[in-house]
Amino acid sequence: MTTDPLVIFTPSGKRGHFPVGTPVLTAARQLGVDLDSVCGGRGICSKCQITPSYGEFPKHGVSVAPNALSDWNSVEQRYQDKRGLTPGRRLGCQATIQGDVIIDVPPESQVHRQVIRKAASARAITMDPATRLYFVEVQEPDMDEPTGDLERLSRALREQWQIESLRADLSVLSKLQPTLRKGNWQVTVALYRDHHGGPARLLDIWPGLHEGGLYGLAIDLGSTTIAAHLCDLNDGRVLTSAGVMNPQIRFGEDLMSRVSYAMMNPGGDREMTAAVRTALNGLTQSLTTEAGIDPALIFEAVFVCNPVMHHLLLGIDPVELGQAPFALATSDSMSLPATQLDLTTLNPRAHVYILPCIAGHVGADAAAVALSEEPNKSKDLVLIIDVGTNAEILLGNTSRVLACSSPTGPAFEGAQISSGQRAAPGAIERVEIDPVTKDPRFTIIGCDLWSNDPGFAEASAATGITGICGSGIIEAVAEMRIAGLLDPSGLIGSATQTGTRRSVPQGRTHAYTLWDGTASGGPLITITQGDIRAIQLAKSALYAGARLLMDEMGVDKVDRVVLAGAFGAHISPKHAMVLGMIPDVPLDKVLSAGNAAGTGARIALCNIASRAEIEQTVHQITKVETAIEPRFQEHFVAANAIPHATEPFPELAQIVTLPDVSFNTKGEAEDGSGRRRRRR
Amino acid sequence: MTTDPLVIFTPSGKRGHFPVGTPVLTAARQLGVDLDSVCGGRGICSKCQITPSYGEFPKHGVSVAPNALSDWNSVEQRYQDKRGLTPGRRLGCQATIQGDVIIDVPPESQVHRQVIRKAASARAITMDPATRLYFVEVQEPDMDEPTGDLERLSRALREQWQIESLRADLSVLSKLQPTLRKGNWQVTVALYRDHHGGPARLLDIWPGLHEGGLYGLAIDLGSTTIAAHLCDLNDGRVLTSAGVMNPQIRFGEDLMSRVSYAMMNPGGDREMTAAVRTALNGLTQSLTTEAGIDPALIFEAVFVCNPVMHHLLLGIDPVELGQAPFALATSDSMSLPATQLDLTTLNPRAHVYILPCIAGHVGADAAAVALSEEPNKSKDLVLIIDVGTNAEILLGNTSRVLACSSPTGPAFEGAQISSGQRAAPGAIERVEIDPVTKDPRFTIIGCDLWSNDPGFAEASAATGITGICGSGIIEAVAEMRIAGLLDPSGLIGSATQTGTRRSVPQGRTHAYTLWDGTASGGPLITITQGDIRAIQLAKSALYAGARLLMDEMGVDKVDRVVLAGAFGAHISPKHAMVLGMIPDVPLDKVLSAGNAAGTGARIALCNIASRAEIEQTVHQITKVETAIEPRFQEHFVAANAIPHATEPFPELAQIVTLPDVSFNTKGEAEDGSGRRRRRR
Repeated sequence: MTTDPLVIFTPSGKRGHFPVGTPVLTAARQLGVDLDSVCGGRGICSKCQITPSYGEFPKHGVSVAPNALSDWNSVEQRYQDKRGLTPGRRLGCQATIQGDVIIDVPPESQVHRQVIRKAASARAITMDPATRLYFVEVQEPDMDEPTGDLERLSRALREQWQIESLRADLSVLSKLQPTLRKGNWQVTVALYRDHHGGPARLLDIWPGLHEGGLYGLAIDLGSTTIAAHLCDLNDGRVLTSAGVMNPQIRFGEDLMSRVSYAMMNPGGDREMTAAVRTALNGLTQSLTTEAGIDPALIFEAVFVCNPVMHHLLLGIDPVELGQAPFALATSDSMSLPATQLDLTTLNPRAHVYILPCIAGHVGADAAAVALSEEPNKSKDLVLIIDVGTNAEILLGNTSRVLACSSPTGPAFEGAQISSGQRAAPGAIERVEIDPVTKDPRFTIIGCDLWSNDPGFAEASAATGITGICGSGIIEAVAEMRIAGLLDPSGLIGSATQTGTRRSVPQGRTHAYTLWDGTASGGPLITITQGDIRAIQLAKSALYAGARLLMDEMGVDKVDRVVLAGAFGAHISPKHAMVLGMIPDVPLDKVLSAGNAAGTGARIALCNIASRAEIEQTVHQITKVETAIEPRFQEHFVAANAIPHATEPFPELAQIVTLPDVSFNTKGEAEDGSGRRRRRR
Repeated sequence: MTTDPLVIFTPSGKRGHFPVGTPVLTAARQLGVDLDSVCGGRGICSKCQITPSYGEFPKHGVSVAPNALSDWNSVEQRYQDKRGLTPGRRLGCQATIQGDVIIDVPPESQVHRQVIRKAASARAITMDPATRLYFVEVQEPDMDEPTGDLERLSRALREQWQIESLRADLSVLSKLQPTLRKGNWQVTVALYRDHHGGPARLLDIWPGLHEGGLYGLAIDLGSTTIAAHLCDLNDGRVLTSAGVMNPQIRFGEDLMSRVSYAMMNPGGDREMTAAVRTALNGLTQSLTTEAGIDPALIFEAVFVCNPVMHHLLLGIDPVELGQAPFALATSDSMSLPATQLDLTTLNPRAHVYILPCIAGHVGADAAAVALSEEPNKSKDLVLIIDVGTNAEILLGNTSRVLACSSPTGPAFEGAQISSGQRAAPGAIERVEIDPVTKDPRFTIIGCDLWSNDPGFAEASAATGITGICGSGIIEAVAEMRIAGLLDPSGLIGSATQTGTRRSVPQGRTHAYTLWDGTASGGPLITITQGDIRAIQLAKSALYAGARLLMDEMGVDKVDRVVLAGAFGAHISPKHAMVLGMIPDVPLDKVLSAGNAAGTGARIALCNIASRAEIEQTVHQITKVETAIEPRFQEHFVAANAIPHATEPFPELAQIVTLPDVSFNTKGEAEDGSGRRRRRR
C-alpha cells in the first residue's frame, strides 16, 4: 500500500496520493482538477491560488497537520511582498505536499469557472473561449539547432500547453523576433483555437507575462436592431451592451422587402452589405468607448442572424432566399478573419464566428436560441418562440427537435400600428382595462407608476406619453377582449354595443381611446380596427407556425412555452394566451428566456466546445417549411379569431373568462375566422 | 473461375477481369490505372481517350476480337461529330468492355503524365499540382433538405473527386449561387489542396465544363536576380521565363550589406520589402503579357530564396540573420494568400508556397536544390554547389546529407572584377591561352566564333567586346595558371618572367592584357592582380565550405560534383578544378544541373507530394555553420593557392600539368598560401 500523502481537492472532491514534495499544481493537473495557471507554474501569474484546510475532517477521513504543505519559499515570499496574497492562500505551483491535506480551489482560481446568467431558467456558461492568453517560455536559438523562432515557440506551446500546431499571420510574425528578445524568451501569446482541430492562430504576442484584457463581441444582427454585448474573454463578464437600428431599414422594413430591393436594384445587395458593416464598426466604436477599452483588444466576434442578414453580412446576394426552394449559399458555420467583413475597428487579426443556419428561412439566430435553450436536452416537450419581425419557432425534446420560421411582420414591435412606436421612454408598455367601467390604466417606459396613481402626471412629464410599444399593444388588445370591447372575430364594438364613450366611430369601424393628450398638445392614442387586424395577422402567423410543428410532431399540446427575444421578455403570458399567440398551456409553464439568440452568441463566444455542439445539433433539427405547406394556411385562418376559432384553450379558461360578445351587426362573420360561435 | 473478360492496360501492365458492360474508365479506376477525366465520365471532356488493340497478343496470352469493346454510342458519336477523335481512339467513359481486350492509355490521357526536363541528369516531374480544375455535378437544392449550395458542392466533390473538405473565401462564395444556376448545376471549380491535409480552398468557379488555362509561377528570388518561370499547371509546360535585377541592389550589393541597411535605417527593411514586391508584380505583368494570358489565371506562386530574401519578401526585419546565432523568424515552409505579399497582379485568391529554410544561412533555395538534385537519394557521395553571391553547398548520400553556405561574394558573377560585367552580349565567356605564345583567344556571348577565327571582327561588330563575365574570368585565370602566367600563389609574372608583352606593369603588380580595343575606341580588357585576388577569395570560400562538409562527413574525396545555379551551367569543369574551386574528382564526374533552385521551385509547383517530401528532407539535413567554425578559416587559407596549398589534386594532374613557376621576387611567399613548393 502506498504511504504517499493523500490530497483531496474541494469542491471537486477529486483525490489521490502523491509523493512528498509534489507541487499542489502538479497534483491538481494529474487529477484533472480545474486549477488555473497562466505562467505554467513559475510563480509569477498568481492564478493558481489555493486554500489549504487544516485540522480534523472525519467526513473525508483525514487529519491535516499544520505542516501538511511546505513552508513558504522565496518565490512565494517575493510574490507576497510585491503583490500580497489573501490570508490563508498559497500559490499552488510553489507549495508542495508534505502530508495528507485538503485543498480548496476558490472560484477565481478555476479556469473553467462558470458565469451565472441572470435569467433563472438559464444554464451557466463554462468559460473556455476559443481565444485565450498563454504564457510560455521559449528555448533560445542555438547554432546547432537551426529551427526558426516560430518553430521553437510552437514547440514550447506544444510542450507547455498541448497546443498541437500553430500558424502566424505575417503581421504578427514580423513582431515575433523583437518581442521574444524583449521578453528574454518569456512571452504571452493570444491564440485562437479552431474548434475543428486546425492549427491555432497566433493573434498577438507580448513580452513577459501580459495580463491585459482580451475581449470579444457577441452580436445579434436582427432585421430591425443590431444588439451587441462586449464580453471579457477572461471571465465572461459583459462589460457593456448596446443596440443600434439596422441601417438597412431604409432599403426595406422587413426581410422580403430587402430581398426585393436587391432583386430590383443592381448592386443593391452591396449597398446593404456596406450599410450593415459600417453600422457594426460604429457600434464597436461606441461599445469600446463606453467600456474604456482599446478596440484592438477585441479578438473575436460571434454573429447570430437570420439567413437574409447572414447573406447580406457576408456580401452574398440574398436573391435565392426570396424564392423557393430558398437555397442558402452556405448553411454551415463560418470562421473567418474579421477583415473579410471590413470590421476595421477590431484587432486586425480578429476572427469572426457565425453560427450555422438551419435552413433558408431558419437562420443562425434560431441556432443560437437552440444553443441557449437546448430543446434537444429537454425531457418535456418545449415550444420556443423567438418573437421578432420574423418569428423563429422550435419544438422538441430529447428525442426530436423541429424548427420553422413564421413571417409575423413588425406589428409585435409596434410598427404598422397607428400609435405604435419603439420601446422607448414615454411608450405605453402595460395596459389594464376595467371590465366594468371599460376605462384603461397603463404604465409607460421610464416611469413605475400606473397612470391612475397619484403623481403620475408629474412623473411622466419628462418623457410625455408618446405612443404604444409592442408589449403595450398586445396587452391593450387582450384587455379589450377580456373587457368585452372586442369580439372573438376581432371587431371593436361601438359605444352603444360596449357602453363606453371611449369607443369612437372611425369610418365604418370603431377605435378605442387609450389616452387623449390633445388638450395639453400631446397625442391621441387609440387602438384602431386596423391595429387589431395587424395584431391578428401577426399572432395568427405565430400560432400557425407553432401548430404546424405540433402537427409534424403528432401532438395536440406542449408541456412548456418559452418566449425568447428581447421583446419576448416583456410579453405578459396571460395576455399572449388571451390573444391566442401561443398554444394553450398552464400559465406557469410560459417562461421568458430573455434575448436567447444573444445569449446563444455569448455562449459560443465564451465556450469553444459549444460551437461544435451547436453545429452537431443543427444537423439534427428537422426544418418544417411554412411557405409551401397548405396546412399552414388553414392554421393561419383558424387562428385569426381571438383567441382561436376552433381550439378550446382550457388552461386559459381556468384563469380568465372571455365574454361571449359579437359586434357584427350584419349578423354574419366578416370572414371565416370570425364566424360567431359560443365560447365557454 | 471467373468468365468475365480480361482487360489489360498498357503501358502500366495492370490487368483485371470485369463484367461485360463495364466502362473502360471504371475498369481503369478500379485497377488504379492513371486515366484522366475532368467531367467524371459524362462524355464531354474527352480527357479519357484510349486506344484499344485488336488481334492476337501471345505475349499477354489474349486474343482481342473486333467486338471486344461496345459499338459507338450516341454520346461518343456526338463528340466525334462535334470535335473529332483521332482514328483508333475511343472515349474511355463511353466504350464498355465486351470481351478480352488490351487498352493503351496514351500519354496525353494520363493525369500524372511526366514532363521530361531538358538537362540529361535531371529527373522527370510527375504532374500533380496543388491547384487543379474539377468538373462536378451538384445536387439541386430541395426544400426538404435545407443544406446550402456550398455544402452540396462540397458533398459532390467528396463523392465525385474524394475531396474531403472545402473552404470558400467570401469573394468566390458570392458568385457561387449564380454560377451553379447558370451551369445548370454543372460547374468547373479550381481547387487548391493543402498538402498538410487541411480543407481544399475554392479558388474559382465557372459554369459548365471549363477548360481554360490554369497557371503558376516558379520564382527563384536571388540577391542579384529574380528569375521566374510561368508554367501551365495542366501539363507542366514552361510558357515563358524571365529574370529581372533585384531592385534591392540599390540598398546593398550583397546580403550582409542589406541586413546592415535595415539595421542602420529605421524602416529600411520595409523599403526593401516594398521594392521586391513591386518588382515581382512587374515581373508577373511582363511574363503574362509575353505569354498572352490573363494574370487572373495565375493561381499559385512558389518561391525559393535565401534566408535574407525570404525574410524581406515576408516583411520580416532580417536583423537577426546578421548576427550569431542567425535565428530565422520561421524556418518551416509557408503557405499563404498571395495578397498577404501584396502580389496584386495574380488571381486575388492565389496562394503562395515558400519552401522551408534549412538554417539561418542556408535557405529555401538550398532546399530547392535538394529537391531537384536529391542528394538524399544518391548512392554515391555527391557534392552539390549552387554558385551565386552566396554559395549553397550540400554533401551527402542516402545515409546522410550536410549543408552549409559560404560567402563567396559576387566575383564569380563578374562583379568586383576590373573589366567584369554581367553575362550579356559582348561579354567574354570562354578563354584559351596558348602555352607557347602566351596569346589568348576567346569567344563572346552572342557570337559563336573564336576571336582568332576569320570573320570574328565582323561577327562581333554588333555587340562589340565589352568586358568579361563570370565564366570568362574563371577560364581566364585558370588558363593564365596553365600557361605559366600565374604562379600557385596567384602572382602574375612580369613580361620578363613570362616572356610576353601582354603582361604589363600596374603599380607594383602586373596585369595580363586579354583584349585591347582602344585603337577602335573600345575598352582595354585586362586581368589585374586585384582580379586574381578577388577570384582567389571567392574560390577559397567555396572550397573551404565544401571541405568543411567533407570533414564533418569524415571523407577526403567525393564521388561526384554537381554545379548548380544559372552560372554553374557555364563553368568549365576543367578550369574550375585548375582554380581549385571544387575538390579533386575525375573530370567526367563534374556535372552541371542548370538552375537547380529554379527547377526545385517548378517541381514544388507541379507536384504537391514534393512539398511534403522536401519538408521532410529538410528536417533530415544537418546544417554546418561556416561562420563560427575555426577550421573553415584554416581551409580558407589553405585554399588560397591555385589550385591548393596542400591538397595534391591527383585527378587534375592526369589531365593537365601545371607549370612550376614562382614570381615572388622577394624569394618569399606573400602569404602562407603562396609558399613556394613543388607541384607534381
